[in-house]
Formats: sequence, structure tokens, C-alpha cells
Amino acid sequence: MELLDLLFGSAAVNAIFTDRSRLQRMLDFEAALARAEAQVGVIPKSAAGPIGEQCRAELFDLAALGEATVKTGNHAIPIVKQLTDLVGQHDEQAKRYVHWGATSQDVVDTGLMLQLRDALSAMQSDLNRLCESLTNLAEQYRSTPVVARTLLQQAVPTVFGLKVAGWLDALARHRNRIQDLHARAIVLQFGGAAGTLAMLGDRGLDVATALAKDLQLALPALPWHSHRDRVVEVATRLGLLTGSLGKMASDISLQMQTEVGEVFEPSGEGRGGSSTMPHKRNPVTCAVVRAAAQRMPGLVGIMLAAMPQEHERSLGGWHAEWETLPEIVRVSAGALYHMAEMVAGLGVDPTRMQQNLELTHGLIFAEAVTAVLGKRVGKSKAHQILESASRKSITEKKHLRDVLTSDPQVIPHLNREEIVSLFEPLNYTGVARQFIDRAIAASKRHSNTRD
Amino acid sequence: MELLDLLFGSAAVNAIFTDRSRLQRMLDFEAALARAEAQVGVIPKSAAGPIGEQCRAELFDLAALGEATVKTGNHAIPIVKQLTDLVGQHDEQAKRYVHWGATSQDVVDTGLMLQLRDALSAMQSDLNRLCESLTNLAEQYRSTPVVARTLLQQAVPTVFGLKVAGWLDALARHRNRIQDLHARAIVLQFGGAAGTLAMLGDRGLDVATALAKDLQLALPALPWHSHRDRVVEVATRLGLLTGSLGKMASDISLQMQTEVGEVFEPSGEGRGGSSTMPHKRNPVTCAVVRAAAQRMPGLVGIMLAAMPQEHERSLGGWHAEWETLPEIVRVSAGALYHMAEMVAGLGVDPTRMQQNLELTHGLIFAEAVTAVLGKRVGKSKAHQILESASRKSITEKKHLRDVLTSDPQVIPHLNREEIVSLFEPLNYTGVARQFIDRAIAASKRHSNTRD
Amino acid sequence: MELLDLLFGSAAVNAIFTDRSRLQRMLDFEAALARAEAQVGVIPKSAAGPIGEQCRAELFDLAALGEATVKTGNHAIPIVKQLTDLVGQHDEQAKRYVHWGATSQDVVDTGLMLQLRDALSAMQSDLNRLCESLTNLAEQYRSTPVVARTLLQQAVPTVFGLKVAGWLDALARHRNRIQDLHARAIVLQFGGAAGTLAMLGDRGLDVATALAKDLQLALPALPWHSHRDRVVEVATRLGLLTGSLGKMASDISLQMQTEVGEVFEPSGEGRGGSSTMPHKRNPVTCAVVRAAAQRMPGLVGIMLAAMPQEHERSLGGWHAEWETLPEIVRVSAGALYHMAEMVAGLGVDPTRMQQNLELTHGLIFAEAVTAVLGKRVGKSKAHQILESASRKSITEKKHLRDVLTSDPQVIPHLNREEIVSLFEPLNYTGVARQFIDRAIAASKRHSNTRD
Amino acid sequence: MELLDLLFGSAAVNAIFTDRSRLQRMLDFEAALARAEAQVGVIPKSAAGPIGEQCRAELFDLAALGEATVKTGNHAIPIVKQLTDLVGQHDEQAKRYVHWGATSQDVVDTGLMLQLRDALSAMQSDLNRLCESLTNLAEQYRSTPVVARTLLQQAVPTVFGLKVAGWLDALARHRNRIQDLHARAIVLQFGGAAGTLAMLGDRGLDVATALAKDLQLALPALPWHSHRDRVVEVATRLGLLTGSLGKMASDISLQMQTEVGEVFEPSGEGRGGSSTMPHKRNPVTCAVVRAAAQRMPGLVGIMLAAMPQEHERSLGGWHAEWETLPEIVRVSAGALYHMAEMVAGLGVDPTRMQQNLELTHGLIFAEAVTAVLGKRVGKSKAHQILESASRKSITEKKHLRDVLTSDPQVIPHLNREEIVSLFEPLNYTGVARQFIDRAIAASKRHSNTRD
Repeated sequence: MELLDLLFGSAAVNAIFTDRSRLQRMLDFEAALARAEAQVGVIPKSAAGPIGEQCRAELFDLAALGEATVKTGNHAIPIVKQLTDLVGQHDEQAKRYVHWGATSQDVVDTGLMLQLRDALSAMQSDLNRLCESLTNLAEQYRSTPVVARTLLQQAVPTVFGLKVAGWLDALARHRNRIQDLHARAIVLQFGGAAGTLAMLGDRGLDVATALAKDLQLALPALPWHSHRDRVVEVATRLGLLTGSLGKMASDISLQMQTEVGEVFEPSGEGRGGSSTMPHKRNPVTCAVVRAAAQRMPGLVGIMLAAMPQEHERSLGGWHAEWETLPEIVRVSAGALYHMAEMVAGLGVDPTRMQQNLELTHGLIFAEAVTAVLGKRVGKSKAHQILESASRKSITEKKHLRDVLTSDPQVIPHLNREEIVSLFEPLNYTGVARQFIDRAIAASKRHSNTRD
Repeated sequence: MELLDLLFGSAAVNAIFTDRSRLQRMLDFEAALARAEAQVGVIPKSAAGPIGEQCRAELFDLAALGEATVKTGNHAIPIVKQLTDLVGQHDEQAKRYVHWGATSQDVVDTGLMLQLRDALSAMQSDLNRLCESLTNLAEQYRSTPVVARTLLQQAVPTVFGLKVAGWLDALARHRNRIQDLHARAIVLQFGGAAGTLAMLGDRGLDVATALAKDLQLALPALPWHSHRDRVVEVATRLGLLTGSLGKMASDISLQMQTEVGEVFEPSGEGRGGSSTMPHKRNPVTCAVVRAAAQRMPGLVGIMLAAMPQEHERSLGGWHAEWETLPEIVRVSAGALYHMAEMVAGLGVDPTRMQQNLELTHGLIFAEAVTAVLGKRVGKSKAHQILESASRKSITEKKHLRDVLTSDPQVIPHLNREEIVSLFEPLNYTGVARQFIDRAIAASKRHSNTRD
Repeated sequence: MELLDLLFGSAAVNAIFTDRSRLQRMLDFEAALARAEAQVGVIPKSAAGPIGEQCRAELFDLAALGEATVKTGNHAIPIVKQLTDLVGQHDEQAKRYVHWGATSQDVVDTGLMLQLRDALSAMQSDLNRLCESLTNLAEQYRSTPVVARTLLQQAVPTVFGLKVAGWLDALARHRNRIQDLHARAIVLQFGGAAGTLAMLGDRGLDVATALAKDLQLALPALPWHSHRDRVVEVATRLGLLTGSLGKMASDISLQMQTEVGEVFEPSGEGRGGSSTMPHKRNPVTCAVVRAAAQRMPGLVGIMLAAMPQEHERSLGGWHAEWETLPEIVRVSAGALYHMAEMVAGLGVDPTRMQQNLELTHGLIFAEAVTAVLGKRVGKSKAHQILESASRKSITEKKHLRDVLTSDPQVIPHLNREEIVSLFEPLNYTGVARQFIDRAIAASKRHSNTRD
Repeated sequence: MELLDLLFGSAAVNAIFTDRSRLQRMLDFEAALARAEAQVGVIPKSAAGPIGEQCRAELFDLAALGEATVKTGNHAIPIVKQLTDLVGQHDEQAKRYVHWGATSQDVVDTGLMLQLRDALSAMQSDLNRLCESLTNLAEQYRSTPVVARTLLQQAVPTVFGLKVAGWLDALARHRNRIQDLHARAIVLQFGGAAGTLAMLGDRGLDVATALAKDLQLALPALPWHSHRDRVVEVATRLGLLTGSLGKMASDISLQMQTEVGEVFEPSGEGRGGSSTMPHKRNPVTCAVVRAAAQRMPGLVGIMLAAMPQEHERSLGGWHAEWETLPEIVRVSAGALYHMAEMVAGLGVDPTRMQQNLELTHGLIFAEAVTAVLGKRVGKSKAHQILESASRKSITEKKHLRDVLTSDPQVIPHLNREEIVSLFEPLNYTGVARQFIDRAIAASKRHSNTRD
């Protein structure tokens, strides 16, 4: 995956999901388990040290582990076996207590939790950075007119700052959703073969408590081997985040079209070049983020599909998660990272925005006129007048303003100055700036508390 | 859809998502909008009454609306037109102010929010009922041994109350997730053509505030026409819930297999009969819930896929939600309702559970023996002894207990009474009862507060 | 569903998937079964007539059937019961032989097959109509220059006919895929309770053969109750078709943007109007088709997810199909129908296409120059020259043609006339017209034979 | 991915989808392109050799390519650049003609096609092997009674050979579907920047023809950069195949339950062992295949979701395929390979099957009795008699046979020998053996021709 890993992922999160990183977190569980059991007195105090010393991923042979996994059906069994052998080479006594009372799923799931914790933290940094950039953009362009587009048609004027505030508002909600996951979803998995911790007799809960404390993970009410709502909730929230990033990428790439030219991905040496067209500057980040947004629904769907896991531990459902959840984290973290990088250098062209506002020769101001005229002649009547004036403007290639100033149905109700003023974009942006302020305020409020 | 509506849905939630119910909520928006605008002074005080009076769904012609929708591309336009005509038949002045300053999406989205609020409330009742049944079952069967199964193989003993507590624990989390949505996701949509409320001049926020208060909906920081994370979060949470219900249905249907026979869906006149096999009693509810769990990932995926909505209002993405979100609510509410009904009458057969614990002639107690023996001879050694004893038990069709009591490798370390006691299921259920208590306590704690 | 049925569906296919139509096809199966069994001699000759006479959907009470379905878990059981009662009211003897030897799934699945056969035929008509329109458009615009766009950036010139030929080529493949389904997927389902036709003793195959002949369905090698690849293949092919329609809708809606304005959905009274913006003409059909393309992956995913159906008949998997496959047919047929309607009246603006070709002041011809210059100075060198000339063109707001005619690196290799000619769009469209001819020829070849 | 690659994939197909294999196929395209262009005379004859010589993946630096890809947005650009540099180190003249007239997507897509061709061939071998095993099993167990199960309840008797024949019948269809793809979907991609091959002037089609011939790929009517139905069809067919494999894995794992014990995955040293339960033998292959079947719907959904690709080349849609399609091939090929391996050694226990047929004390023969009794007293009446006899059998824990032989409603119509004979499983398996023969015959017929 070397070829595409950096394109679709972020270096920081990619590093958390390598085979070796995955293995190390599993070994972290085994070391902490030995410490917890030694502390509680379930295994000899002397066993924890020698076990912990071998819990280093670099001592393990990944290829051999991969081959053994085919036979055992999960990677925990060969890892525990290799660990046991390693410990045994140094301490025959400690060897007996490796993985004591735990089951494969305990080490796999808790290892995953440790990966998720790190990955979510990295993503929060990127979210903070992105929200900061968006706040700055929203403030900078709070009075920059741009055309609002509905169903890919020019509609009425708005300001660019409001577009950005909309992105910010959504991203701030996602920041809370991600933050919230630490409390809701990142918990210890520890239940033994069937979720009773039977091998530990009546000390199961004591060991679990010590283990959770050691790993700084919350202790759930009971083991959750086949109850996957927490991990799937992580997946759904990353899916939601990526959906909003996809919306941003969609907007930016549409505004970056040659025929629109209002915003631009930052340029740079070799960035977004084409192999055959020297003049092209491709929206590379938008491509990556849109691709992520197209992949996420299917990937999240897999996690949901795998939820009905049978009995105490499932046949297939759990296995379906192993490559899927890391992929979800990798792809969403990548989209977020690249978007944060890109928005920090986003180019904005207010002049082109202004030119585009003129493209329809005033038609996008029809609603503004209707609003005022409607107050005087009724909404339906005003609507009819504007529809016919709009048609005339198109047919005669005349600016709508000029059609209206000579329209006998209009003249009695609106004078020339009024009409001209109605064609000033900023005059028809309602409470856009109040909305911008509210979004910025809300995003700041959220960043300190749970929503 | 009459044929299958009750099978897959719940009557209460089905009723919220009929065409006429949908229309009524949209008309509730229009009536409230007129009141709010009259109150703020944007439209004449006298207009609100006549508009409100026509906002009754029974006055509208659904077939005509359906046909007009093909042309306009959304159902709001013909509804507003028909409402305007109705108002005009009674009050020419008021007619001018129907839908004043609003856009199609305002009425469609807010109407949806009103539907969702009612549907989520209905679902919370069913969730409460289900959690109560599960709490009772968990307590009743806290000391009823049953075999734990991993990868569809008998593993070790557990108690049935712990299986139930696992279901309860997950359901209690879902109850919080659903409850939480009221605060997070159920908000007003009101932004006018492009999210600036431009037609209302500088009074947009005042009208929005009054409108939100009238409809008892939270007022968001800004309109969210093309930012769909709130509605998609509703979808993902219902998907999560249905996944957990699917896990329950999976467990119950597997335990209800003819060859297992441990639990049963309640029977009743004509319930679950077969058209050709008079003896059969089909797990009808499990079929419905499993079907729901198989449908939800795809349906939730559609909502996620539709998130990247272009600019101020989208071309297609929003439209993709219209039938999908109601389907998600209908199917998840149906699964929940039927599960709550079924679990209230769930049959449990502790005798058969006991018989099944004997099926392997003691093999499922191998781990219990390993646990104790391991303390004395080391885990690996104990593992090897038990593997060979298990093989002997299978080959010679002899109970494992009897194999062990005559095994020279075992005799020095475990006496006969110890061995016999190791084959008592309840002696090897660890802290199962503590876990049950924790789950019940957690579910009660959660029901009063946000998690 | 009245409100949205016509918007998202086609009237012809909607009519096939009403509850009553579904019921009628199921009754068609029951009538044909009685005839086949009477013919083979499994039931009395006299029973077929009285059974067949009651097989009329209008005699049945849908609401009662819906309520009974909740108890029985499928709609076939109450339908067969109601049919048995109806027959019994006229002929006590014939009553004994209703549904003889069949199981619920036989009547439900075969009824579905009869619906699919009709729906696929209706879709083929629309596909033929659409392919014809596209053939005409491809021919009409075979020499109309338009800019090719890659990654939403203007790239190089092409002709509009080639865009259309690309659509046609894909649609012709889909026509074959749909046609092909009749032979591959539309087959009888008839196996009795467990797929052995045991109730018919040794006459099972004779009855099946007669039944298949009566219904004009192919007879499969054996019953396929829990082997769903045929119906899921129908779903996947409709998904593929909708994906290609989505691509067309994407292209058309992008070309229809206010800032691009190259093609237009046909206009008409009330078509695509906005509730607040009198000047707007919304791409209503594109919205519908794009929505369909966003829904199809999730819906098809449900069908795939439901494939692993247990044993002889499944618990949940089959049930998950009941509402999903009709939805897939309805949504894809609707997208196809609306697209066929729209393309028949598609507006094309060659003038605007020409204007857009000029937007970059010649930059989109950079590759054309590189191609010729590359032959003389090497590709890399030419690429560098054009990159620097392009930069100059942008910085100095000068047409690239004019930059090049004064570029000392270019002058030795290309004279003025050569350069000017390189900026003629049609001079740089390669073998576009040959490709158009090939696509048209292929589409005609395919329409007569299976691919 | 070393840890899980062999578990979820097959070694043969994994090897086709490494980074280096992917790169080599792309270089194969570049070498063939140079040869074709030299042959047609578009580039100097002398350029092809020096270019071809550098088209060896081992000469390339994958890590550097990965880093450059972030900037360029696709991996083709840095690969072409590195190739150009390599060629230039040996031949300054040839360097000019690397990748001449092609675009990034030409090399990426054609490289993919070469990978798919090899992967599909490998899968066909596994499919042949699996079909052969299934044919043998179907013949061997054509008269081995086993209970048929519907909705996870015992229903009526069947034979194990028919279960196997059902699997075979589906797999044989999939074999045809996969085979068929070679003709339908595996084609050259070659269109240049916008699908016109403009850089090649009027020689585009000649080069394309020569290139297709060189690579032994079919030449499509026109380039298909943004028309993805062919590659998505590959995905859907692999999804269909995996669904059927999932059905097999579901059946086998359910039959392998401790409480059922009718079939078994082959055992072997270390295969399917548990880390804590020495007696367990886990259905490892079923877990892998079921996981694959749960992943495929989401992954196929991504491919469908990415179909609406914009204009001549898309922004994001194409990128969404890059990691997804290889994953689909890897996961489906892995499921197929492991299933073929496992079925070749499948254990079958006819004795246990017979025991399970006795579990209900004759209830599963109720339909058999109804069938005969119904002929004499009418179906409804017979149904009632059996329902009440079944209840009696359950309540009084008496074999249904014994209940019936003393039932005054039955005695007049069936004598004792008739009743006893009705409880012989093989007497109530209808035309099962004919169906088996038909399935085997169909599978053999198909293997020689297209269906």
C-alpha cells in the first residue's frame, strides 16, 4: 500500500495502523495484564517483569505470525504463543502466566481501543486546526458577496463568509462527536473465554479494575465481546465527519471549476499537475476527500452489517471488522488531514465572485425585487411580474434592472433608486452576518464543553 | 404497502409516516410561520388566522399533489400552491403571505423534524418497555446455567442472566443515544432561498426565534439546508440500535433451533405457523428483526452517501433522503416494537439448557480444569494434558471427568472431589453475577441522565 | 407514497408493484399450479376451474391480509387461507387442492418473477427509446466542439457527439444486460416445503414442468429457495444501469450550471420552477436521477447482504428482500423513464460551448501545441516550454496563441499559421468521430443479439 | 497487512495485488504502448526497445513514488516521470516518447485490467476445484437423509446430496459469470487526455488496435475513462459469488454446531484451536467466508456509488475505486480459495444426521402424513388432524407415529404399515435425486459453454 498510503491517509494515523503498531498495542495489553494480575495476586509478583520485558513488537516475526494466523483463525493465538515462547526463553516460571485468564478477543479488542485512542487524538488536532482556519476565513469574508447556488443553478446573493460558516458549524459538531467518543466508546475489553472471567475465580473484577487503570481505559459494566455498538459508533461518527468533509470538497471543487474560478486549492511545486496538460492545476485534495466520502458509506455499512454477532463470540462478524475499522480510521483521518492542510492555504477570488454575480444580468436579484414588490402588490402578483420580466430580460438580452425600470406594472410601486439598490448584492443578504457570528460563537462554545 | 407495513413496522410509527401525516406536519410549519411573522410584524397580524385555518391535511388532494410534484421536482411547491389557493378562497389579503420568506426546503425539513420528534418518542417508550423486560429476565435467570458459545461451538458455562444482561447493557446505551438525539438533532430549519432569510430583511432572526418557539424546536446557529449531519446522525443511531436488536434476534433464533431449544418466542393463535408443516412454530419476530438488521446498513449508507450536498441546496442528495429516512425510522421502529412485544413473553427452558451443558460429556469444562491445574503445573502443561484427555474422551466416548480422575498426570495434582466440583457449571461462572448487577445498575443510572 | 411515487418512479412500473398487482401475480401462480396439477393428474381435473375462478385480486381484503401477516410472518399464508375460503364457498372438493404441494416461498418468489418479467420489459422499451435519442444526438453533434473536462477543470477540446456516444455505449451495454436477465434470472420457483416437492411423490418434476410452461417461465435445474443469486443479479444489473444514468445526470447537470450553460433539460409549463425564485429553471430530472444513483448502492448492498440464507429457507434474509427488490426496480425504472423523457427534449447550445472553449485564453490548447512541438523538441522540453508560456499567458492576461507566436523557444519550430491552426478545436479532436461511429455501430449490433 | 493477508486472501491472488505487481502491469502497458506506436510509426522504431528495457518494477523506488503521489494526486504521474528519467539515462531520444499520447488513466486502468485478467483466471481454477468437490459430495450423499430446516426449525426430511447440489448449482452459475467477464469486461483503456487520442492525430485507432493486440486485450468501441460499468460489473459478480459462498459457510457452520454435529471442517495440526479451550475445534474457514460475505455488500456498494463520474475524467469517483476493487478481488478470492480447500476435506456424519431426524419424535413427518391423508380427507382437514396430533405428541411426549396409529380420525384412512412407512425419511424426499442429477448435469453443461 506504499503507493497510495500517503495520498489517502495521514502519516500520523497511518503509523498507528501498521501491523507492527497493532502488534505493539496487543503486547501492551499483555504486559499490563501481567502487572494487574501480579498486583491483585492472581499470578506471582515475579512473573510480571519477565513477561513485560518481552512485550516488544520488534522481537516478533510478522511473516510467521501471518502464516500461523491462517490455521488458528485469529492473530492473537500465534502472538500469545510466540510471546509465551519468548518469555520461556528467559523465565520458565513466568511463561506459565502469559495471557492468564484472557481470551484472544480481549487482547485484540483492547489493542484496537489503544489504537483508536491515539488515532482520535491525532484527528482532534487536525479538527482544531481546520476549525481555526475556517473561523478566520468566515471572519475575513463576512462581507464578500458571492452567488448562492441551489440545484447547481445560481439563485440569489449571499456572502462567502456564510458558506464558510456553514462548513465551520458542521465541523464544530463533528469535533464534539469525536471528543465525546473518548468517554463513550474507548473502554477496556476483558472477559475471558465467555465473558465471565471464570479463570480468575472471584478476582475477575479486581483484575479488570487494575488492568483498566493501568491502561487508562474506562471499565465497562461488563465485557462486550459480541456487543459491538461502541466500535460501530466510532465508525458511524467518522462516517458523519467524512460526509461533511465531502460536502466541503464538493463545494470547493465546484467553485474551482474553470468556468467558476472563485476559490482555489493552494498551488505548489508539482502539486496537482497533469501528465499531459501543462496548464492544468487539479484539485487534488478535493479528489482525495470526495473519494473518501464515497468510500465511507460502504465501509460504515460493513461495520453495521457485522453487528448481529452470535452468542458470546461470533463467527465472522468480528472478523469482518478487523480490516474494516482500521480502513475507516485511515480514510477519514486522511481526508481530514488533507482538508486541514488545504484549507489553511485556500485561495479566494472576490473579483471573480463579483463577476459571477453579474452573469445572469440581474436575474438572481429577481427574488429581492419580488420580496419588496410583493409587500406592495402581493406575493403571487409580484411573482408573475418578475417571471415575465425575467423572460423579457433573457429574450432581449437586457439587464433585469433595466427591464424593470421601464415596466409599467412596476413603476407605480418602485422608483428607480429603489430598483437600483435592490440589485446591490449586500443589500439582499438578510441576516447572513448574524448567522456567521452565531456559528463562530457556537463553535467556540463547543470547543470547551460537550454539546 | 398495506400487505407488509404491520409486519415490518409498528402501528404507532407507521402512522407518523403516512403521506397525510407528512403533509400535516408541513402545514403545521406553514401555520406557525404565519403566526411568527405576524407576531414579529413582518406580515399583517390579520393574515395568520386565515392561513392557519387552511393548514389541515384533509383539505388537500394527495393525488393531484403527487402529479404536480413530477413537474416541480419537490412536493413543497404544489403544497404551498394549493395552500395559497385555499387561503385565497377565503381571504385575498392573507393569500399574499402564505410561505412568506421561506423556501421549499424549510417546510420539508422542518416537517420531517416534527415527524422525527414524534417517532423518537414512540421508540423511547418501546425501549423503556424492552429494558424493563430484560432487567426482569436478567434477575430471574441470574443463576441459571447455560453453555456459552463461541464461533457457534460450545465453549464454557455461563448463566443465562448474563446473556440477557449483555443485551440490556447495549439497549440501555441505545436508549441514551436516542434520547440524546432530541437535544442534538431535532432543530428548526428556516433559511429562505439561500440560508440568509433575505426576504425578511433584518427581521430574519426574530422570525426564526419566534417560529422555533412556536414549534418547540431548538434554533440552530444557522440554517443547515445542505449540512445534513444531524439527520444522518439520527439514521446512524437507529442503525446502531437495529444492529443490537439483530444481535438479540440472532441469539434467540439460534437458541430456539429445534436442536437447541433453550428459549422460545411466545406462541399464540396462528402465530408463526407454517402453510405446510402443522408442527412448526416459526420465530416470526426474529425473522422480522434480522431482516431489519440486514436492511439497515444499506439504508444508513444511503444517508451517508447523500451527505456531500452541493452549495446552498443540493441536486439529488437531499432528494435521496426523502424516502430513505422514513424507511429507516419505520424499519428500526418496527424491529424495536416487535422485539419489545416478543421479549415480554419470551419462553425460557432451564432444563434444556442443563441438558445442552451435558452434550459434550464434560469437554466444555476443560478450561475450568485447565485453570486450576494450570496453577499447579503451569498453563502450557495443563493445556496439553487437557487436550490429550479431551481427545481420549471423544475417542472412547467417555465423560471427561472420568478420563481425568484416572489420568496419572492429573491425579497427583487434583483429587476426585476437586475434579467433580470443577464440572459443576455454576462453579465456573466467575464474576457473572457481579457483571449482571453492574449492567442493571448502569441501565438504571443511564435512564435518568444523559450518558 | 402517492406524494413521491410519480417523481421517483415510472407510472408503468409503479403499477406492477402495487400491493394488488403483487397479490394478482401470486394468485396467477396458484391458478396455474392448480391447472398444472390437474393436467398431470395430481389433483382432480375438476378442481382447477373453481380454484382459478377465485384467483382474482379484487376479491381479497388487503387490510385483513396485512394484519394476518404479522402473525404468520409472511403474506402467502393468509393469502392462501383467504383463497381456500373463497374456493370453499363455491366448491368444497376443490377447496382441498388449493396450493397443493407448494410452500409459501414458491408463490411469493414466482409471483415476484412474474412482476420482474413485466418490469424488465417496460424498462427495455425505455432503454430502446433512450438509446435512439442518444444515437440521434451523437450524430447531430458529431462535429460540435466542446471542452473536455477532467477533475472538473477544462482540459482539451473534444466534440459533444463523443460525450453522447460515451453515454450511448454504456447504455447499449446495459440494454444487453437487462435483456439477458430474461434468460438467466427469470425462472420458476417451485420446491415445496424443503425443495424436494415431496408432497407430489414422484410427480414433482412433471408438475413443475407443466407449471413452468403454463406461466412461460424457464424451469431451473432445482428449486432455489435459499440460493438467491438470480434475484440479486437482477438487483446488481439495475444498480449498474442506474450508475450510468447517474453519470449522465451528473454530466448534464454540470453542463447546465448557470456558469456553463451548454445543455438544458427541456422546459415546460411549471417544470422545474422554484417556489421563491421566478427566474430559476431547475434540472428536475437530473435531481431525480442523481438521487436514484445515490440510493442504489445501499439498496443493492441489502440484496447482497441477504444472500447467505440459512439451510432450506432462511430466517430474515428472504424477508429482507421483500420490500428491497421492488424498491430497486421502482427507483431504477423511474430514473430510466425520466431520463428517456428528458433526453428526448434535451437542449444543446453550441454557441455557449464555443464561448467556453475560449475561457482560458487558449490554455486548453497547450497539449495540442505540446503534441506537435514535442515531436520536434522532445516531449519533456515541449512540456516545459508550454508550462512557462501558460504561466505567462495567465500573468499577462494574454492569449496563449499570442504568447507562443512571440516565444523565441517556439518560433524556430512552429510558424504562425501552424500555431493558429493548433488553436482550432476541431483540429485537435483526434479520432473522436471514428469513436462515435464505432459506438453507434456497436449499439446497433448489440440490439439484435445477446452480448 | 502481513498479519491478516493470508487469512483473508489467497496467496495466488494476493501476489497479483502487491504494489510491485500493480506497478509492473502499469509498466507492461508503457512498454507495449511504445512497441505499438513504433510499429504504427507514431514514434521512432528505435524508441521502443530502450523504453521497454526500463519497464521493470524492480528498478523503481516505491517509497519515493508514494510520496510524489500525494502531490500529483495519482500514482501514474510519478511512475511515468521515474520511467522517463530511467530511459533518459540510457537514451535521450527514446526518453521523448515515453507514455506518448497516453494519459494517467490509460496506464492505471489498463494495468488494472491486466491484474484482473490474472486474478479471474486464478479464481476460475479454484471454482473448478470447488465444483468438482461438490459434484463428488452430491453423488456420494444422494441417498443420505438429513433434516431440512426452514427458519432455523426442523421442517421435513431431505437428503444431504440435495443440499450440496444446491450449492453446486449456484457455484456453477458463478463460474459462468466469472468466465463471461473475460469477454465482457477485460478490455483496453486508451484514450489520451480526453478520450479522443488527439495527440496521435489520425493514427489513434491504429495505435489502439496494435496496443490491444500486443496486450491481448479486447479493443472497446471507445475509451471509457468515466464509464465504469465494466469494472463495477466485475465487482458485482464477485459480490454475488461471495454471497453464495457465504450461504455455504452459513449452512456448514450451523450444521457444525455442537448441538447439530452433522458436518465438520477438516481438522489438522493447530487448525481452529482455541487459545483457552483445549477441546474446541473452530470453524475457521466458515468464519473467514462469512466475514467476506459481510464485507462484500459494502465494498461493492462503493464501486456502484463511484459510478457517476463527471465529464471526461472524474474528481474522486475514479480515486474511490483504487483501493476498493483490489480489496474486493482479494477478499472474494480468499473466500473462494479457503472454501475450496475446506470442502475438499469436509467431514460428514450420516449417523448424527439420522439422530437429528429423530429429535422431534416424528413431528417433521407431519407434512408427509398430511400429504397422504389430505388426498383422502382434504388438505384442510388433514392439516387440522395433524396439528392436533402434533400437539398431543408434544404434550404427552409420545412419538407422532404412535399418536397417529391410535387416532380414530386417522385409522379409517391409513393403516399401520402405511403410517410406519410414512415415517421413513427417504420415502418423503420427492424428486430430490432427480434434482441432484439435474444440477450435476447443468453444472457440467455450463462448464463448457457460456450460459
